[in-house]
Amino acid sequence: MIEADYVTTDPDVLEAYRSDRAGFVVAGRPAALARPRSTAEVARVLEFAHEHRIPVVPQGARTGMSGGATAVEGAILLSLERMDRILAIDELNHTATVEPGVINAVLSAAVAEKGLFYPPDPGSWQISTIGGNVATNAGGLCCVKYGVTSDFVRELEVVLADGRILRTGRRTAKGVAGYDLVRLFTGSEGTLGVVTEVTVALRSAAERPLTALAFFATPAAACGVVGDYLSSGRRPSVLEFMDSATVDAVSAYRDLGFPDDVGAVLIAQSDRGPAAHDDLDAFAKVAREHGATEVFVATDQAEADLLIEARRLVGDAVGELGDQLVDDVCVPRSRLAELVEGIAAIGHEHGVRIPCCGHAGDGNMHPTVVFDAADPDSVRRGQAAFDAIMQLGLRLGGTITGEHGIGTLKQPWLETELGEVGLSVHQAVKQAFDPRGILNPGKVLRRPPC
Amino acid sequence: MIEADYVTTDPDVLEAYRSDRAGFVVAGRPAALARPRSTAEVARVLEFAHEHRIPVVPQGARTGMSGGATAVEGAILLSLERMDRILAIDELNHTATVEPGVINAVLSAAVAEKGLFYPPDPGSWQISTIGGNVATNAGGLCCVKYGVTSDFVRELEVVLADGRILRTGRRTAKGVAGYDLVRLFTGSEGTLGVVTEVTVALRSAAERPLTALAFFATPAAACGVVGDYLSSGRRPSVLEFMDSATVDAVSAYRDLGFPDDVGAVLIAQSDRGPAAHDDLDAFAKVAREHGATEVFVATDQAEADLLIEARRLVGDAVGELGDQLVDDVCVPRSRLAELVEGIAAIGHEHGVRIPCCGHAGDGNMHPTVVFDAADPDSVRRGQAAFDAIMQLGLRLGGTITGEHGIGTLKQPWLETELGEVGLSVHQAVKQAFDPRGILNPGKVLRRPPC
Repeated sequence: MIEADYVTTDPDVLEAYRSDRAGFVVAGRPAALARPRSTAEVARVLEFAHEHRIPVVPQGARTGMSGGATAVEGAILLSLERMDRILAIDELNHTATVEPGVINAVLSAAVAEKGLFYPPDPGSWQISTIGGNVATNAGGLCCVKYGVTSDFVRELEVVLADGRILRTGRRTAKGVAGYDLVRLFTGSEGTLGVVTEVTVALRSAAERPLTALAFFATPAAACGVVGDYLSSGRRPSVLEFMDSATVDAVSAYRDLGFPDDVGAVLIAQSDRGPAAHDDLDAFAKVAREHGATEVFVATDQAEADLLIEARRLVGDAVGELGDQLVDDVCVPRSRLAELVEGIAAIGHEHGVRIPCCGHAGDGNMHPTVVFDAADPDSVRRGQAAFDAIMQLGLRLGGTITGEHGIGTLKQPWLETELGEVGLSVHQAVKQAFDPRGILNPGKVLRRPPC
Repeated sequence: MIEADYVTTDPDVLEAYRSDRAGFVVAGRPAALARPRSTAEVARVLEFAHEHRIPVVPQGARTGMSGGATAVEGAILLSLERMDRILAIDELNHTATVEPGVINAVLSAAVAEKGLFYPPDPGSWQISTIGGNVATNAGGLCCVKYGVTSDFVRELEVVLADGRILRTGRRTAKGVAGYDLVRLFTGSEGTLGVVTEVTVALRSAAERPLTALAFFATPAAACGVVGDYLSSGRRPSVLEFMDSATVDAVSAYRDLGFPDDVGAVLIAQSDRGPAAHDDLDAFAKVAREHGATEVFVATDQAEADLLIEARRLVGDAVGELGDQLVDDVCVPRSRLAELVEGIAAIGHEHGVRIPCCGHAGDGNMHPTVVFDAADPDSVRRGQAAFDAIMQLGLRLGGTITGEHGIGTLKQPWLETELGEVGLSVHQAVKQAFDPRGILNPGKVLRRPPC
């Protein structure tokens, strides 16, 4: 194995770095963990791995939901967590340049101090790294207005499979010189190269958002609001959906004074300063037209924070229900009601609870399949429900993953979504960047037969 | 040659399709012109070309500025102009699906009828095709607020080099299943595949924009306004710059009542309805702080249209000055003044006129080198100036092309911008998609030695 002060083979340390947060994914036994502090050290690891044909699994904070950062057998785990410097914040051109191990929340706070704003806000934003966000093309709540990670990545430094160092993209607002490799690397889950520096675009700080919350008797009523409200030209900064099972879980976790018989909730935010009141009044109007049973529009910041609290508690509240597998399908927003109702039906059919919430404005739902890991039958039913949800998403013209990625968890389903020609083109791209197949092998794409 | 009713070898027809609008680019002699009406016919052309290793040059409206659609020797010209149907406008999900030959203006008008908006607006928008816009990742005036073509492309159907048909991307607002091939194809100038169907995202219609125009004594004063105004958080829908030579050309072409001694002009638009007045008042304030000699803010639509007229006339007005070569460098916007002043210095040094205007908010300038094609010395000086401008753009941290693309015109400079590793990765990608090198060979990338 490569000898360097940033490499360890200590079994306890390896064990701690073996998995990300995906369920149903079996981690292999890693051979070593490298925690380099510089691009040169990353390059050294890849040169060594390339020469000896050793698999390399790049890792950020291992908060991924699909197994992208989970060890494969005999791999070098390549953690970028020590490359955590903010290299520059360019206030004139609204960009920031960071090493991949910088935590999203650290960058967000640093740019906020200068009156700037880095919008991508995955649920893990307080603990996940920018490098991981780039590797998975992370989304978040405010995508509905601002877009996802790839909409903000301008320039990358990438160490290639053989250890060569590539700079690609540009710092300018526009540019079409050559192929868009920046967006090819973004979301490629460490299978095409290892990102060692990222320049992101920033925006001027938005106003603090105001919030509205509406209760509905049925999911279909809430979904109808989503389409009508967005079609009216409004651009909410958040537009979230929670079904009744999610609301029940939150209410059991903390009493927010919600009514007992909620069929669905929508939460909308607007960050347009004084115009936010107008945006939310319009939301309330559309909600009432669709039969909302109650609508609350915050009149000040304290009320606004209270109303969004329900959404913030979902992860912890649903986590109390049992073992779980978080899904991530995305459909055209006109099909949202069919998706939500179909998920409920899948829960009934397979005898599992599937609280469902998510980014309604983008048609991106996170149904959480709750099961008992100690009960093989429950596990089997949970997996069947998880698969049925992806199948439903595809049937509704959607995708099996809106923002969590493929990893190993969804690899068989990726082949269904891509089709034969798409899969073959993906394999050709992988082969072009990683002919020896050492970069995160078996993630996204199946390992080719030896 | 392939025999079909959509293929011709008529020399007069071939001659008419031989070139796009790039200067200094020598077109080869095509062997045939194919004008298929369907994806199946496009696939048939590519299967034939692949089997016989015949170069294929995809073409839209041939309005490109870099030679991307210009014939190479012995090629089949593959014009997509007959595939010009709008297949669907999805009002619920804000997307449109079109064949590649649909004219940008036709799509824009069709979606406007439904209260929707397709923002990308290259200068050629009234005559260029969506397929060509995708192939070049076309920009335009309103990029400063809305982004470029690739920000709107969701799903593509692409015929691959060997005639296989790929569908890639998705219609949903988000999705991370597999590599971002949509953005890899977008801007690849027909070197990786032939786009036969495009699904673009739409937005709700914007309000008609209002306009402000400011005169400055120097370009530096105008460039200072750009940075300060955008840093203040305003998002103008247009922010254009014109230097004195451009203003002189426009005034000579049509008397708009402009003063005689203008050093530079900025034109700003805002499409935020009633809030546009506030945006433009803020613009006027910043302009005056930077020493604007006069500022006009339109109070109604008629005045607004009059003020933007100067910008609209630039192409025709500068066209009157002589033969020309339009450049397209983009720099970080903090370097805009250095770029503009440097371009003027290059004009003096090489003894050529270089009126300069462009998309100031994006740092993307279009200096036009004016020369006399009948005078070899003038041509030589023009080419030297053209090259010096790209060198200056790179030195200022920018790119050799913000929105026009590489084609053949800028190919040697692309190698400088990409560097050795970047070039090698580009060649590997090209090889993966087009192993026989039949797709627009010699465009973007140099032809490999036989």
